[in-house]
Amino acid sequence: MGNMWEFYMPTDVFFGDHILSKRGPVMKILGKRALIVTGRTSSKKNGSLDDLTDLLEKLDISYVVFDEVEENPSFASVERAAERFRDEDFDLVVGLGGGSPMDFAKAISVLLKEKDLNVEDLYDSEKIRRWLPVVEIPTTAGTGSEVTPYSVLTDQEGNKRGCRLMFPVYAFLDPRYTYSMPEDLVLSTGVDALSHAVEGFLSRRATPPSDALALEAMKIIHKYLPKAMGGDEKARRKMLIASCLAGMVIAQTSTTLAHAMGYPLTTEKGIKHGRATGMVLPFVMNVMREEIPDRVDEVNRIFRKSLLNFLKDLGLYQRVEVSQEELERWSEKASRAKHVSNTPGTFTKEKILMIYREALSV
Amino acid sequence: MGNMWEFYMPTDVFFGDHILSKRGPVMKILGKRALIVTGRTSSKKNGSLDDLTDLLEKLDISYVVFDEVEENPSFASVERAAERFRDEDFDLVVGLGGGSPMDFAKAISVLLKEKDLNVEDLYDSEKIRRWLPVVEIPTTAGTGSEVTPYSVLTDQEGNKRGCRLMFPVYAFLDPRYTYSMPEDLVLSTGVDALSHAVEGFLSRRATPPSDALALEAMKIIHKYLPKAMGGDEKARRKMLIASCLAGMVIAQTSTTLAHAMGYPLTTEKGIKHGRATGMVLPFVMNVMREEIPDRVDEVNRIFRKSLLNFLKDLGLYQRVEVSQEELERWSEKASRAKHVSNTPGTFTKEKILMIYREALSV
Ligand SMILES: [Fe+2]
Ligand SMILES: [Fe+2]
Repeated sequence: MGNMWEFYMPTDVFFGDHILSKRGPVMKILGKRALIVTGRTSSKKNGSLDDLTDLLEKLDISYVVFDEVEENPSFASVERAAERFRDEDFDLVVGLGGGSPMDFAKAISVLLKEKDLNVEDLYDSEKIRRWLPVVEIPTTAGTGSEVTPYSVLTDQEGNKRGCRLMFPVYAFLDPRYTYSMPEDLVLSTGVDALSHAVEGFLSRRATPPSDALALEAMKIIHKYLPKAMGGDEKARRKMLIASCLAGMVIAQTSTTLAHAMGYPLTTEKGIKHGRATGMVLPFVMNVMREEIPDRVDEVNRIFRKSLLNFLKDLGLYQRVEVSQEELERWSEKASRAKHVSNTPGTFTKEKILMIYREALSV
Repeated sequence: MGNMWEFYMPTDVFFGDHILSKRGPVMKILGKRALIVTGRTSSKKNGSLDDLTDLLEKLDISYVVFDEVEENPSFASVERAAERFRDEDFDLVVGLGGGSPMDFAKAISVLLKEKDLNVEDLYDSEKIRRWLPVVEIPTTAGTGSEVTPYSVLTDQEGNKRGCRLMFPVYAFLDPRYTYSMPEDLVLSTGVDALSHAVEGFLSRRATPPSDALALEAMKIIHKYLPKAMGGDEKARRKMLIASCLAGMVIAQTSTTLAHAMGYPLTTEKGIKHGRATGMVLPFVMNVMREEIPDRVDEVNRIFRKSLLNFLKDLGLYQRVEVSQEELERWSEKASRAKHVSNTPGTFTKEKILMIYREALSV
């Protein structure tokens, strides 16, 4: 943990049942016309899209619904949407759903303001100067994207790449939207939140405020994730809190190599993001132990001695067929990821390959 | 703890040795002319004023130093300063020192922008619409004012009254400035930070993120305040971190009755703010126990079974001569304070009087 640190977390976060109708009117100051960015189905099923459009109508904010965001959104899909809406005048963008629409909303908010930029430009921080204000409404408990400036998109070659854009102005968290999630989604998103808290706590960029938030998030997740999978509403509520705290953590620290290593498992093997990250995380921690044994022990202690056993008991691990060529290629790529610099321990390509082998043979 | 909550903490906080020279250049965007608000002596002795003026000169920001802020600043002194600088055009206000100059900076930043307002208007939230951007640089480890929107001023009748103004844009925390504090000031400011963490954790307005920050702050203070009093620099560094975390807590929860009860001990008996609050806090907690026994126990557990004993061992309690008339009057006033609504438990005037008696006979 560095001797110099920064804490910056400017998103105004509102949490509670029916929070949109109770506190949503603060959005009024953002303007008169909104682009709503969401996926095809879940925001219709869980009631969040109706709540949002009701609110906007009451506030006299007109809106267009773009409901074509796919999981792990691609550069091409962001470009297409930017093209489609280029000539419309929006005052704000609302991301509604899981990490995919929330990340998509951030990306398009830049492209709709700076109309000469393309998606590749989002990775050049010099070019990110202006954007439409973004409001985020998560309906899963995992990504924490509602309180981070990050957007993760998949490029033409199929690589997941994160960029740093802007903090959302407002985040509205209504736990009711998470009650209809299927068990498997609760697991994968919950383990994403878990990974954010653990990775942030173990990051070389950990800070005192991020540690405070990470410790609390880990404790909540340890206690409530199993019950949340079973459908317990109080537990799902707690998981939405924990995922938000964990998002505040990575907003400060960013993620570590566990995230970078999970990406190809998602893009090439279709394993959900949280699951992919969680599978490698305990083995990444074994290498981190070289540099920060006490912190790694503290994490394991919170998860009743062993994070690996906690994740195994949840049924996180699954069979994945991989070839030697794939493992070599992924390891090579991960060893060059920017995440390496945040990650305590020495991660050679060989060590990374060993971690993949361990994670895939649990 | 409510089922609905908000987290809003937009101040960009920078911490570290020589942080002004390292990260201070971000202030450049705030403008060309600064009013520096500080006390008469300590910011000259601890090197912070020189660091600040060096920085501003490098950034081509011209400045005026107002170094007449007294402890527990009065309405009259704020009015006088506003009058003196009314015709100057400042772009920003920098508060440098303990809570008094930092609170003063917030108040004057409104009055220099909205020139028709007077100090009493600061207590009417409807009127607080615009202000000069505020930068805060704490040189004690206690108030947390660098990350709160609060300003506490003393009115014509000698009452301390807090108002909610704006969050500082930037806070710069350099632990070196705290190394020259005398032991007694480390105690009184450290116990102020302690009270913020404890009161925020016990407040009816506690939230999950504020709890996370409060728990971490309490643990740091328990571990490091005794050593910080002894002059240990690492411990003083930790206390500056803890006071900032505790400030983030009360920025969410505001303070409780312990603060309101401490105010007359400060204004009428000259007992320093942190000391005054800390003296009554353990006895306020005994009444809070009616409503939140588990939380009160958790606080005591963090302070090795008894917060009262921890504070006694630090030498916090001191003899104070008070009359029955004073106790009656203070209790009457505290029973009507707005803090009562945040404070778990039932606080009649009689119970408050009993708390004063207990606190003053330790
Ligand atoms: Fe993630
Ligand atoms: Fe205080």
